[in-house]
Amino acid sequence: MNEFELIHRLTRSLPTNPSVVVGAGDDCAVLDPGGPDRLLLFKTDAVVEGVHFSSDAAPEKIGHKALGRCLSDIAAMAGTPTAALVTIGLPRDFQAEKVEAIYAGLNALARRHQVAIVGGETTTNPERIFISIALLGWVPRGKGVLRSGAEAGDAIFVTGELGGSLAGKHLDFEPRLDEGRWLAQHFSLHAMLDVSDGLAGDLRHILAASRVGAELLATSIPISRSARLAAKASSTAKPALLAALTDGEDFELLFTVAGRDAVPLLDAWRKEFPKLPLTCIGRITAGEGITIRDKHSIRPLTAHGYDHFA
Amino acid sequence: MNEFELIHRLTRSLPTNPSVVVGAGDDCAVLDPGGPDRLLLFKTDAVVEGVHFSSDAAPEKIGHKALGRCLSDIAAMAGTPTAALVTIGLPRDFQAEKVEAIYAGLNALARRHQVAIVGGETTTNPERIFISIALLGWVPRGKGVLRSGAEAGDAIFVTGELGGSLAGKHLDFEPRLDEGRWLAQHFSLHAMLDVSDGLAGDLRHILAASRVGAELLATSIPISRSARLAAKASSTAKPALLAALTDGEDFELLFTVAGRDAVPLLDAWRKEFPKLPLTCIGRITAGEGITIRDKHSIRPLTAHGYDHFA
Repeated sequence: MNEFELIHRLTRSLPTNPSVVVGAGDDCAVLDPGGPDRLLLFKTDAVVEGVHFSSDAAPEKIGHKALGRCLSDIAAMAGTPTAALVTIGLPRDFQAEKVEAIYAGLNALARRHQVAIVGGETTTNPERIFISIALLGWVPRGKGVLRSGAEAGDAIFVTGELGGSLAGKHLDFEPRLDEGRWLAQHFSLHAMLDVSDGLAGDLRHILAASRVGAELLATSIPISRSARLAAKASSTAKPALLAALTDGEDFELLFTVAGRDAVPLLDAWRKEFPKLPLTCIGRITAGEGITIRDKHSIRPLTAHGYDHFA
Repeated sequence: MNEFELIHRLTRSLPTNPSVVVGAGDDCAVLDPGGPDRLLLFKTDAVVEGVHFSSDAAPEKIGHKALGRCLSDIAAMAGTPTAALVTIGLPRDFQAEKVEAIYAGLNALARRHQVAIVGGETTTNPERIFISIALLGWVPRGKGVLRSGAEAGDAIFVTGELGGSLAGKHLDFEPRLDEGRWLAQHFSLHAMLDVSDGLAGDLRHILAASRVGAELLATSIPISRSARLAAKASSTAKPALLAALTDGEDFELLFTVAGRDAVPLLDAWRKEFPKLPLTCIGRITAGEGITIRDKHSIRPLTAHGYDHFA
């Protein structure tokens, strides 16, 4: 049984109550606190030594990544993060300086986004560092963006460039909080998430939640420089396009808008965020699954996103 | 460096923002969401295989304990829990049935307290199961109970019986949510927490936060049957009174009220909760530290609570 099958079994009949707007299965849980204006966003995410970062990674970057992953999920709901708790499991012979450096990286990112660190816990995990972040945020009522609203004819967009994140970006990416909020304020976003499992895998989450298909344009996928370099470095390396489609941990925003909004959105984006590419990579179709079009053919995309248990 | 020293260093200069009412250092963080009525409570807590439960523990009880610990912290603020996220790190060869049984125990406890499980994450922790729970709750403005309000002359109370929790209670305790809320609704509680590190260690948290001391009555400490049995079973075992003072994970409520409220509180308690003992175990003093009085002497109590890194 892999991670996705297990999650499916575990989430079939979870306890709920009337405050739950969105439970398991989207980027964040959404809760209604009462009150006229805002909904609560609630998210946890963990990073584990040897799984999500190597033992020799810079500790400041480990802390940055641990919080950044959660912030990216708040960004994908067009929300604003407010407070986080930090749970850290440590081997018994931990170095205090390393733990302090992990916190320094985490705190620096928190301060940039006005996120309070309101506590947490240290405990023992004998073999490796395990960091779990719990994050709260807010989103104006009616402005949260789920995965389930994509419609046939929508244009599909992605921020930044994709693939090859393991060369470095996975440890120092910048969560797209300003971009997510700006998009939701200025355009009617139909569906959005952050690219954590890989473009193809994450797009499938939108397609499954929205019951639609997608056609991607191979020549439009924004391939990162590190994916291109890795592909050139070895004849056995993943081709750069495949890396852009399937590598995990890019933490870019993937979203859809009505086709008629595509050009106005690109124009406005370039004025607002001139340094960050935004690319239309294809369109939502009435079918199911992903097809990819290049100059020769249209083929179904069968490669899977990155599965933590694979 | 032990756990408490590390936490002290890490929490000296955490990022904050205007929504924070109480940050690191109390049972839960307290956040002000705006609005006239309620404050948010936010808590995380982790249990680790081989540290907080043995590999052969019943999986339903592992799930119960994981959520119960967090619920106990909400109880200690006199709050009402509303929604939880479950992060579970699993070895690669995990048994799906065991994970489902962990969730079954967790879900049953959640349902009893109307707590929604709104998602979470499974990830890899190769050597052992690691479960981190993030929990949200609410408390009416002005009704939350912190650790810092104890005053000289207060009576000190504890629910239930203490010590010997490892014989079983640590896996199937009932968080004192109804009791915590009832206490805060009917009496002016000065300080409260849940006994997780051991009575002596946790009382010291109240004393440090409130800048007071305490005198305990040795003959009044409610010693559990399992602590008495363990003490009798071996000449090298911890004496039962010491077990009641220093064993961890009882998850009972420890609180103080003005001395004049002590008798009315005991009377009302016995009518409301006839099956659960409530015991006055001593009083808050103007000094510092804990002294313990028996029929022969008054001695300073130097034994420490249970330190996860000791």
